[in-house]
Amino acid sequence: MADVKAILREVQAGRLDIEQASELLQGASTLDYATLDLDRASRTGFPEVVYGAGKQVEQLIGIMERLREHQEVVLVTRVSEEQAQRVLARWPDVQYEKEAGLLIASREPLRPVRDGYVAVVAAGTSDLGVAQEAAWTARCFGSEARVIADVGVAGIHRLFGRLAEIREAAVAVCVAGMEGALPSVLAGLVDIPVIAVPTSVGYGANFGGVSALLSMLNSCSAGVAVVNIDNGFGAGYMAGMIHRKIAGK
Amino acid sequence: MADVKAILREVQAGRLDIEQASELLQGASTLDYATLDLDRASRTGFPEVVYGAGKQVEQLIGIMERLREHQEVVLVTRVSEEQAQRVLARWPDVQYEKEAGLLIASREPLRPVRDGYVAVVAAGTSDLGVAQEAAWTARCFGSEARVIADVGVAGIHRLFGRLAEIREAAVAVCVAGMEGALPSVLAGLVDIPVIAVPTSVGYGANFGGVSALLSMLNSCSAGVAVVNIDNGFGAGYMAGMIHRKIAGK
Amino acid sequence: MADVKAILREVQAGRLDIEQASELLQGASTLDYATLDLDRASRTGFPEVVYGAGKQVEQLIGIMERLREHQEVVLVTRVSEEQAQRVLARWPDVQYEKEAGLLIASREPLRPVRDGYVAVVAAGTSDLGVAQEAAWTARCFGSEARVIADVGVAGIHRLFGRLAEIREAAVAVCVAGMEGALPSVLAGLVDIPVIAVPTSVGYGANFGGVSALLSMLNSCSAGVAVVNIDNGFGAGYMAGMIHRKIAGK
Amino acid sequence: MADVKAILREVQAGRLDIEQASELLQGASTLDYATLDLDRASRTGFPEVVYGAGKQVEQLIGIMERLREHQEVVLVTRVSEEQAQRVLARWPDVQYEKEAGLLIASREPLRPVRDGYVAVVAAGTSDLGVAQEAAWTARCFGSEARVIADVGVAGIHRLFGRLAEIREAAVAVCVAGMEGALPSVLAGLVDIPVIAVPTSVGYGANFGGVSALLSMLNSCSAGVAVVNIDNGFGAGYMAGMIHRKIAGK
Amino acid sequence: MADVKAILREVQAGRLDIEQASELLQGASTLDYATLDLDRASRTGFPEVVYGAGKQVEQLIGIMERLREHQEVVLVTRVSEEQAQRVLARWPDVQYEKEAGLLIASREPLRPVRDGYVAVVAAGTSDLGVAQEAAWTARCFGSEARVIADVGVAGIHRLFGRLAEIREAAVAVCVAGMEGALPSVLAGLVDIPVIAVPTSVGYGANFGGVSALLSMLNSCSAGVAVVNIDNGFGAGYMAGMIHRKIAGK
Amino acid sequence: MADVKAILREVQAGRLDIEQASELLQGASTLDYATLDLDRASRTGFPEVVYGAGKQVEQLIGIMERLREHQEVVLVTRVSEEQAQRVLARWPDVQYEKEAGLLIASREPLRPVRDGYVAVVAAGTSDLGVAQEAAWTARCFGSEARVIADVGVAGIHRLFGRLAEIREAAVAVCVAGMEGALPSVLAGLVDIPVIAVPTSVGYGANFGGVSALLSMLNSCSAGVAVVNIDNGFGAGYMAGMIHRKIAGK
Amino acid sequence: MADVKAILREVQAGRLDIEQASELLQGASTLDYATLDLDRASRTGFPEVVYGAGKQVEQLIGIMERLREHQEVVLVTRVSEEQAQRVLARWPDVQYEKEAGLLIASREPLRPVRDGYVAVVAAGTSDLGVAQEAAWTARCFGSEARVIADVGVAGIHRLFGRLAEIREAAVAVCVAGMEGALPSVLAGLVDIPVIAVPTSVGYGANFGGVSALLSMLNSCSAGVAVVNIDNGFGAGYMAGMIHRKIAGK
Amino acid sequence: MADVKAILREVQAGRLDIEQASELLQGASTLDYATLDLDRASRTGFPEVVYGAGKQVEQLIGIMERLREHQEVVLVTRVSEEQAQRVLARWPDVQYEKEAGLLIASREPLRPVRDGYVAVVAAGTSDLGVAQEAAWTARCFGSEARVIADVGVAGIHRLFGRLAEIREAAVAVCVAGMEGALPSVLAGLVDIPVIAVPTSVGYGANFGGVSALLSMLNSCSAGVAVVNIDNGFGAGYMAGMIHRKIAGK
Repeated sequence: MADVKAILREVQAGRLDIEQASELLQGASTLDYATLDLDRASRTGFPEVVYGAGKQVEQLIGIMERLREHQEVVLVTRVSEEQAQRVLARWPDVQYEKEAGLLIASREPLRPVRDGYVAVVAAGTSDLGVAQEAAWTARCFGSEARVIADVGVAGIHRLFGRLAEIREAAVAVCVAGMEGALPSVLAGLVDIPVIAVPTSVGYGANFGGVSALLSMLNSCSAGVAVVNIDNGFGAGYMAGMIHRKIAGK
Repeated sequence: MADVKAILREVQAGRLDIEQASELLQGASTLDYATLDLDRASRTGFPEVVYGAGKQVEQLIGIMERLREHQEVVLVTRVSEEQAQRVLARWPDVQYEKEAGLLIASREPLRPVRDGYVAVVAAGTSDLGVAQEAAWTARCFGSEARVIADVGVAGIHRLFGRLAEIREAAVAVCVAGMEGALPSVLAGLVDIPVIAVPTSVGYGANFGGVSALLSMLNSCSAGVAVVNIDNGFGAGYMAGMIHRKIAGK
Repeated sequence: MADVKAILREVQAGRLDIEQASELLQGASTLDYATLDLDRASRTGFPEVVYGAGKQVEQLIGIMERLREHQEVVLVTRVSEEQAQRVLARWPDVQYEKEAGLLIASREPLRPVRDGYVAVVAAGTSDLGVAQEAAWTARCFGSEARVIADVGVAGIHRLFGRLAEIREAAVAVCVAGMEGALPSVLAGLVDIPVIAVPTSVGYGANFGGVSALLSMLNSCSAGVAVVNIDNGFGAGYMAGMIHRKIAGK
Repeated sequence: MADVKAILREVQAGRLDIEQASELLQGASTLDYATLDLDRASRTGFPEVVYGAGKQVEQLIGIMERLREHQEVVLVTRVSEEQAQRVLARWPDVQYEKEAGLLIASREPLRPVRDGYVAVVAAGTSDLGVAQEAAWTARCFGSEARVIADVGVAGIHRLFGRLAEIREAAVAVCVAGMEGALPSVLAGLVDIPVIAVPTSVGYGANFGGVSALLSMLNSCSAGVAVVNIDNGFGAGYMAGMIHRKIAGK
Repeated sequence: MADVKAILREVQAGRLDIEQASELLQGASTLDYATLDLDRASRTGFPEVVYGAGKQVEQLIGIMERLREHQEVVLVTRVSEEQAQRVLARWPDVQYEKEAGLLIASREPLRPVRDGYVAVVAAGTSDLGVAQEAAWTARCFGSEARVIADVGVAGIHRLFGRLAEIREAAVAVCVAGMEGALPSVLAGLVDIPVIAVPTSVGYGANFGGVSALLSMLNSCSAGVAVVNIDNGFGAGYMAGMIHRKIAGK
Repeated sequence: MADVKAILREVQAGRLDIEQASELLQGASTLDYATLDLDRASRTGFPEVVYGAGKQVEQLIGIMERLREHQEVVLVTRVSEEQAQRVLARWPDVQYEKEAGLLIASREPLRPVRDGYVAVVAAGTSDLGVAQEAAWTARCFGSEARVIADVGVAGIHRLFGRLAEIREAAVAVCVAGMEGALPSVLAGLVDIPVIAVPTSVGYGANFGGVSALLSMLNSCSAGVAVVNIDNGFGAGYMAGMIHRKIAGK
Repeated sequence: MADVKAILREVQAGRLDIEQASELLQGASTLDYATLDLDRASRTGFPEVVYGAGKQVEQLIGIMERLREHQEVVLVTRVSEEQAQRVLARWPDVQYEKEAGLLIASREPLRPVRDGYVAVVAAGTSDLGVAQEAAWTARCFGSEARVIADVGVAGIHRLFGRLAEIREAAVAVCVAGMEGALPSVLAGLVDIPVIAVPTSVGYGANFGGVSALLSMLNSCSAGVAVVNIDNGFGAGYMAGMIHRKIAGK
Repeated sequence: MADVKAILREVQAGRLDIEQASELLQGASTLDYATLDLDRASRTGFPEVVYGAGKQVEQLIGIMERLREHQEVVLVTRVSEEQAQRVLARWPDVQYEKEAGLLIASREPLRPVRDGYVAVVAAGTSDLGVAQEAAWTARCFGSEARVIADVGVAGIHRLFGRLAEIREAAVAVCVAGMEGALPSVLAGLVDIPVIAVPTSVGYGANFGGVSALLSMLNSCSAGVAVVNIDNGFGAGYMAGMIHRKIAGK
């Protein structure tokens, strides 16, 4: 949101008329079915991202079209196979990451814009979809992301074998289902922030990921913060934001 | 329900026989699979509405047929695509609002019968179905309804841009999924009642709308009351009832 | 919140300096442990209310002192016996409603400022504390409130005996614990909005009021909206706001 | 289970050999995939009933075949359309109650064996499937059952119109979804036991019938006992058992 | 509730004036803090019972005083030690059942008015308080009640030793905490209705009785219906009502 | 439970009269408030244990007195400080383990009766009470028990330092609160059964131990089975039973 | 995990170079999408098992291929019909247990390697799939497993008829849905450890197996430990491990 | 954990004996009731912190004594008034932050060791205790922390008035109870990471903080990660760790 006093000074000086100042102070841009937030990047550092679930394909394409005019990269999350195919029919150059359920429309090929990387650590092979969602999100926002798969606590030595690579990252995303114990173990071994993502992998008393979520919230290791179940996007975004702050750009 | 003493006086005066008085005092009218409440409008101000979910199409048509004889407007909620198509095959003039899951059978075109309007405010594009259910319900009962879409708290300035329009309404319906924060913010900014509708939009620890429901029940702003998850009908009905009382008709 | 364009025009005209305009646009007034919202009445129609639970007595007195300078009526909710006694020691003229857990500091005796009344309907004797909280809240904001006690559905005829009085109200608050069935029955019998308040009265599978809360959210009667468990304040506030709108002042 | 001392006396007297006595005392009869309880009627008054859900059709037919040799009436509950069609292909004389999800294989046409009847009271048209399950179960065990539909609390006078018929029953089954308020209201009006059946009719905070279940468990009216969500069978069985005891046969 | 036509005939015949008829049809009798249901016995067969929890002692005494004028037996449930002592100070002849948390004010000593008895079966010694609440409730309403203690499933043979006594009862109340398995086992062995009462005895994943409650609702034996956790009163009332129907008085 | 055929043969041979045989087949021994299971050791290998919670002290002493006549060791669990002091006043020789909440009345000093030991592994210092309950229970039933404290996953190397001692045990009990990750890690490192005990240590989203319970039920390592929250007794009993089977006595 | 000091001594003696020692101490073996735990058998006594749910068929085949090189028996759990058919197309010799959802790839026919057996006791016919999963898992790890079906508590005598066979087992797995009472009853009758498996068989307040899970965790009989809902694999693994320890191999 | 190869090289070179190397590789230091993790700072950047809840005072003092020998700052969380007073009696120089429930034993006065600061933003006055816990934790680990109180969404303009100060922080901690909407609003307005802390402030359907927790997990704004309910420590620790990484020391 704009700096209030600055805009007022512009008004006072006669350099900005009332309509313009009002728009700037209010900052809204309205379509029929959506009110796009075109200045989000100036507030939060990253442009608006589209939540695909429950949107009709026409709405999705309309929103993407408008955003592509303003943003270098347009990221759509929680995309179904059917939504994806119809968007690809419209824009064959859009990148579809099926396992991660993402659509990425980028003017230029994605590449890291800062030093260092984000480590995305996944407990099991079945957690890879969520891990990929986190990794691609971080990449969309300018970070390198490395995925380290299947190092869950049932064979804890597998984690130790990859520990050096994780410890050299700027920040770690840690993805786990079932009992969700990996973030606690990992956070006790590294000096970087751990963003934990519970997944819905499991059955029975797993309750769609609640078991892993509660584990992560109750971690006996400090240095862990948690995002929603299966929310790879949120973790990748948070990791990218921290990485940018650490790298200074 | 009828005024007991009035009926008794009619009986005492001999102007009403026992059978008629008994019927009036009991007010029941029974079909095979339903007991229609034909005098609901006299009690509550609005005629009976049909809950479509779980009803066989034959039952639905039977009930609609009977109600259409007695009511200006027959509203059916929670209608599936299949139910709707079969009803439309029977009565092509019935209005089917697909996004809202409603069937509307009205003798006359719907139009507002009172001054002012109901503002239906929706946090995201994915909440629009529920918002439309609320708006059409209010319209069925004689109110004008305006839908203001996609003004959720992730870009709070979007709400400010539409605030004047909301503040001039008689009552607001506020529809939100995910964390359901919009009603709290809105109720702190307006002097009209806010009927909050949590939606099931979201995933993971959203638990089918429970997250938004709890947020709305725990609103730190006063002036918020809540209906069931995804219950656009209930909110539109409540808003219409308040609007009618305010407008005096 | 102030009208943006109006303030801007004042700035443009030189009638308002930058500091003043900035304060008005931002509207914050900060103490050590609280940021009081002194212009809430201009936004929402009612001044700020203090939530007593969890506040230290010194904080409570400090906040009340500041608010009493600006407001005709200061209402404090969720007050413990100990908090109340210490506030009364400071200001013996403050009104303490023990059953309702409220403190009321009013410059003038409370009296209705509008025609009509709010009906507060309680299912059982054990629900009276919450009902009184609703009734006193409505009174603080200028409505007359009438409490109708112990008319729960176990003897449904008791409700019928009081129905006329309820139907003549502008709006009803309906308070019930245990299975919370009363609002559904009531809303099927009246043409006024019903604000339902679940209470924690009960035991076992009542789960501290969850049973009544779910009943009210799932009401088969339309015209019901719900506030938090035991939230008599929220219901009284909502009822008062609707009453004010209906009465036109 | 047999009377221990009686069997021992038979052994002592030499009228029963060790093998037979052991079998009688243990009472087991084993198939490959089931251990049928052929003497259940002698213990509980009613023969074994088959739970259809999750059983393979071959298992279902095998069990029915064996039971039909020993029982006048074989009742199968929770039958899917597919299971039913394959059983009917095997035995075209079996009665399939589709709405209730029951199969009934009876040697003789079902008819009441005792005076009086069971009243099955349903709140809404959508609850009729569960109500029919209860009614047919009671009929299988020798009771007359009368279904009274769509008398829910949104129009409470509809219940009053049917009250006389309910009060003359030996026992009532009361079926309701949504907020499940009907059993509380009914039990306050009659002097017969009310067996309450919550149904999963509803959505959102209904949680698959939990709302109605909790209401019924927390009924402020005494004289209500509850069975599982959608468990029309259990209610019909309980009602039939009470009816048999009252009728003395 | 009175027979509508009968009252109307009285009015028509001039034998009942409008006021009296109106009162009879409405049947309400109002105090300050309670609306007593003095004609409940005529509707449900048993007079009104007082729920003690959450009532102030003055309210409790006021209600008891009024009810004692009209009823042979006044039963108060969920009474705390402090409430009981203050009531006993007022009426030393009132019977206080401490373990059961009941007050009983009876004009005549309680004694059975019908043949047969209610069997109250308790799984463990810690369940005895709830069992006594059930037993005394049944006694208040004219049944003999026999308590059979500590026959839980950890030593199932203990149940077999008491089975004859249970099978000869008219109806069984079955009280159990922890896993609540006893009603399932019992109902598979007897031909009388089993009213199951889950208790909050246990800890951890018992969740205050939820474990036992769910077990009883999911009983694989038919012939079980359930009341609220720790609701000995409800079970005793239901059992007494069934017993009265069976005994024919 | 006795061998049915053996008893029948004794009856047939005239060596056992009907009363005696009936008692043996039924095996019940009844007090006023309890039905003691004196032959439990013959069925399950361990004598009856007394659950102290919710029992009156008189009941507790009565039960202990009776059991001490028949059993070498009487163990009472979930004992409060007050219960313990009153039992100690009666029998000063009884051993009171305060941290574990146990009373142990043993004729002879407890000592191991078999080779090998049970390893009781606790995640944190705050889990020690539950660990001691498990250890003393195992000791009561003849096993040596070693407690290994504070080796939780926040510093996973602490576990590795004690691993050799754990791997040489016959069976492990693993006690943890908060996220309850320790059993998963441990079971991936050893070839002995792990009995996991969640504790209520923690706060917030720990929900009184539910977080740890779900973690353990969802363990990604096989070889883990779980007992109730804080149920050190159950784990120690299970470990002792497995140990006895392994040791062959 | 290797013995630290032993490896260090090898290094000190020059018999092991730094790279090899490091690998042994770290023990990881990495693929693209999985990090296989090839030395699990040396740590836990049983080789790695593959969790099939949520894995792409290509991943599944890749993992199986690698494991088959190293292990005598490769067990895959939670296999869908589609996954199974595609694996069978690749390796027609693999054994597919459809009811249990297992794939078994064994170099030699499975046969018991130790004396005694595991008793798998199932409450109902609908629980057989989970019971078979437990039985086949135990067989994969060298135990004989006997399935005893349909002996639930609704006809408790059926259990008594099979008790001798259960009591002679080394360990029992007890599988039950609905109210899950069977393990409590069984554990009170035998002197062997009981591994309880709740199943999701049931409906309504069963909540997908929660009812049975809570029952088993709250068992009033000691000697019961519980695994996740429907987790036949976990129970069979645990039983096999205990059996191996008892048998001494 | 130490660098494995480095230690091995020391062993190979004969500069480290087997005992020492083994200790270093295993890193455990064991007391009676605790296994202190003295090298945690070398792994995670911050030394061990003591969880006070549920620890006996003797244990607490013993652990603090040992840690004070090794650490500059010893922080104890979740300290009760009684624990605090007894520790202060032992060491009068220890700092007791009562509102935050912390004990801080620091050799030198705490002062920031890096540029920038952590903003701790609290929604209400009742959330201040948790906010202070977060602020003091960050200070213990070398960050400046500024608390911004009572800027919740009921008067959203209060937040805007403090926004500049928040935006200049390195990282924000955001503390809120009730509906927990503040983090969503805040994260939409700033470009720094937001660590959200739900508090248990509220009542009824707040469920001890669950409402706020779910809101934060379902935030429609990206850039939010969550810690446990009331876990000010965890948030302050995470914020301090991120701050340290950003500041480069």
